[in-house]
Amino acid sequence: MPTAPPVTGRRRLAVCDLGSNSFRLVVFTSQDGWWRRTDEIYQPVRIGEGMAATGELGAAPMRRALETLEVFAHFCSASGLESDEIDAVATSAIRDAANQEAFLSKAVKRAGIPIRVLSREEEATYGFLAAVNSTTLADGCVLEIGGGSLQLVSVVGRHAAESASWRLGAVRMTERFLDDDGPATKKQLDRVRAHTRDRLERAPWLGRSGDRLVGVGGTVRNLAVAAQREADLPSGGVQGYVISRETIDGLVDKLASLPRADRGKVRGIKPGRADVILAGAVVIQTVMEVGGFPALETTEAGLREGVFFSRFLADRGDPPVFDDVRSASVLNLAAQYGVDPDHTAHVAKLALSLFDALAAAGLHPGDPMERELLWAASTLHDIGVAVDYDDHHKHTRYLVLSAGLPGFSPREVALIAQAARYHRKGMPSAGPLAALLRKGDNAVLDRCAVLLRLAEDLERSRDQAVRDVAVAVDGDAVTLTLDAEGDVSVPRWAARRENELFSRAYGRKLLVA
Amino acid sequence: MPTAPPVTGRRRLAVCDLGSNSFRLVVFTSQDGWWRRTDEIYQPVRIGEGMAATGELGAAPMRRALETLEVFAHFCSASGLESDEIDAVATSAIRDAANQEAFLSKAVKRAGIPIRVLSREEEATYGFLAAVNSTTLADGCVLEIGGGSLQLVSVVGRHAAESASWRLGAVRMTERFLDDDGPATKKQLDRVRAHTRDRLERAPWLGRSGDRLVGVGGTVRNLAVAAQREADLPSGGVQGYVISRETIDGLVDKLASLPRADRGKVRGIKPGRADVILAGAVVIQTVMEVGGFPALETTEAGLREGVFFSRFLADRGDPPVFDDVRSASVLNLAAQYGVDPDHTAHVAKLALSLFDALAAAGLHPGDPMERELLWAASTLHDIGVAVDYDDHHKHTRYLVLSAGLPGFSPREVALIAQAARYHRKGMPSAGPLAALLRKGDNAVLDRCAVLLRLAEDLERSRDQAVRDVAVAVDGDAVTLTLDAEGDVSVPRWAARRENELFSRAYGRKLLVA
Repeated sequence: MPTAPPVTGRRRLAVCDLGSNSFRLVVFTSQDGWWRRTDEIYQPVRIGEGMAATGELGAAPMRRALETLEVFAHFCSASGLESDEIDAVATSAIRDAANQEAFLSKAVKRAGIPIRVLSREEEATYGFLAAVNSTTLADGCVLEIGGGSLQLVSVVGRHAAESASWRLGAVRMTERFLDDDGPATKKQLDRVRAHTRDRLERAPWLGRSGDRLVGVGGTVRNLAVAAQREADLPSGGVQGYVISRETIDGLVDKLASLPRADRGKVRGIKPGRADVILAGAVVIQTVMEVGGFPALETTEAGLREGVFFSRFLADRGDPPVFDDVRSASVLNLAAQYGVDPDHTAHVAKLALSLFDALAAAGLHPGDPMERELLWAASTLHDIGVAVDYDDHHKHTRYLVLSAGLPGFSPREVALIAQAARYHRKGMPSAGPLAALLRKGDNAVLDRCAVLLRLAEDLERSRDQAVRDVAVAVDGDAVTLTLDAEGDVSVPRWAARRENELFSRAYGRKLLVA
Repeated sequence: MPTAPPVTGRRRLAVCDLGSNSFRLVVFTSQDGWWRRTDEIYQPVRIGEGMAATGELGAAPMRRALETLEVFAHFCSASGLESDEIDAVATSAIRDAANQEAFLSKAVKRAGIPIRVLSREEEATYGFLAAVNSTTLADGCVLEIGGGSLQLVSVVGRHAAESASWRLGAVRMTERFLDDDGPATKKQLDRVRAHTRDRLERAPWLGRSGDRLVGVGGTVRNLAVAAQREADLPSGGVQGYVISRETIDGLVDKLASLPRADRGKVRGIKPGRADVILAGAVVIQTVMEVGGFPALETTEAGLREGVFFSRFLADRGDPPVFDDVRSASVLNLAAQYGVDPDHTAHVAKLALSLFDALAAAGLHPGDPMERELLWAASTLHDIGVAVDYDDHHKHTRYLVLSAGLPGFSPREVALIAQAARYHRKGMPSAGPLAALLRKGDNAVLDRCAVLLRLAEDLERSRDQAVRDVAVAVDGDAVTLTLDAEGDVSVPRWAARRENELFSRAYGRKLLVA
């Protein structure tokens, strides 16, 4: 498995995302091999308010925007952020406003922050970077839908192959086609679909590079939350959640059947988005239909992360993408909590060594995916110590579930979190995460947890004294032989305590030679 | 409020606590103004096994002890701990063993770790330091009960005034008086009480310095867990939990009525302690009776923390104690998560300024305890950002509840955690912590949460642009006037959103001038 890239010294980037609906300042920090969002200010500025009628930014929205930019400037100055650490980007509303120039010069005068108005192509590129750096998408398509526009990027071998952008955003489509208060009629929806289908003809490449579709943006995230609620899943974020075409269809039908004022009552739908989500969902539905995508994969990363990745990963070549998103996520989270890397790497090594030997002996299927989950749980098992030593196995679970692991599905994150939860004692169970697991996953959890526990027992002195472990299967018993220097009676004695769980996981008695 | 002491550079101390029942290595780390336990190895060595009969450490227990010491030595060496960063201390079993010398020389030879055998007075002193540095005890008594011995220290003005130690530990008393399998008879218990009472005559000072009694050690902690379960309280640790005399009496009666093998089935009682907990509880009960103590306050700190404090606080004079345990706890937790201290201190300042002005205007009682909780919630409100920016208010609650705040009661910790939980949005409620709160606490929570929110709104630019805030009450309205430089339209606008919660908390409309 790869090791963390050698990043030292703190680097920061404040991305000011000046969207049609809201302005958001997000500070990303990278240091000692990790990166994450460390600060955020959100203001629902609604700079696009009234623009449909006039084509211009209105006086009141502009005033709100300038006040907010001034707060952002104060914040950056108070945080010691230099001008080259601030990147303010504007999208659809400001891009299309007839009085854009006037606004930009006022903004620089009032707040001293220069604003980059993104072209549609640039916006699409940032959406692409957000998607490929937060999922395992190699071939397929990225869909990014905002208030003003829709961007689609076809992806081949983790590179952007084709891209296009249309004025098919959720706010715009609502204003144009669904701007009344009652339930939406079939005729209205068909008009949205026909219009979208017509526009998508400019993208004959849609769906040709593969049938995976990754969705970016608030509309996608909110539909994912609604889909999770409907499936009664625990609300642990939507990163990696897959929404089937049927689920989207069901949500469209349900939202359309309600008067606009009631759409916020659908479980999971945000009240602030209730008036425009239907149009966004219908556009997405039409993209799926035209491109032949069976499902939509959600990512929580968006434009802001795209801007960050374009700088943070600049030395990775073009495009700036992680080689392996999954291992990058795990190592990023581990590095944030400063776990002892020698100990952790050795526990992972011993656990994988046991995994491989038991697979070779035919005691389990040796699924490479299961092996990767075991590696992730081993690498992260101790991060909870940052909260408190007592119950640190439970704290590890909390931290893994809270931060998430981009590139892994919610089910895989649950398995990693539960395996780490049981790295000390107790008989593993899915607990509050049961709804996320599939048939057979309890056995995966048992197998991962007991190997992690054995590896931790063998590395009890934290000095890698047990270099490796050999496995011999004889009838109903598995015998571990330790390759070690010095006295290993305590690791041996500790490992023997895992007999009960080992029997349950592998159907054999455990002996330690 | 005091600020964090200027500690820089990492310091570590590995305390090896070689007790009669278990050996435990705990690593304490202090750095940049915080300290906490960062590592631990536990082995249930039971070095005292069989000693009652022979007066000597047995061959098998000694072998287990030496193996474990070797693991500790490997661990310390792998962690880069120097010999002056390791302090191995032995208590009752090793202190009293006839073959102590032989064991100590074998230990040095095998593991290279010199062992300090603590005198009874030293053991009592460490218990005292653990208690006064983790509670607000100023005048009263510290009770420390282990497997072998009982120590009592009378405390006057946070100094140890008198102390004594007896062979009244839980294991010893069980072996002597309660060593059969059936339920304990009244006669048996009376013999334990009479013996204890007789021994306590050596401490005529017991109870004279005040009626607060703080309990240290595993027996006390386990009784506290059982008391919490019986009261159906959430299991968030026992730090600061107060067990009444009646509750101890009830637990003694319940435990005594059961055969020894069944005592582990009492809710909260650890199976590994079930055979000796009754004797310990009766000794504690007798101390309470003799000293006239109405209740026993629990602390999670023990001998190991005492050893740590004796070094960590050595520059605080004699005895090495925190001036103010409560503020030290809050600042310690805040420092661990590296929140922006200027922002945090300014939010706290603004919140307290509002608190004082509203109290002066007669809009709330102005309770100094409530003021301190507001200060604590303000100081800690952002620590959850260390987990993830999203939902950081919830992560703050998790971190506060997980780490605990020595010096505060579970109820106070719950109020601090819930106030921080609601520092961004939502209408405050006690949520899962309701069982810990008293009548009137929901109003305290509303008042603290809304002032913290207002202070956060006013400090939205994080540059202390709003220097202070003045309050004017006129009829049914409270008007805030900001003392600020530059444009404050956004803070003003943000603060106006708190109207609903402000009305609920203070029964007045909120206006921002």
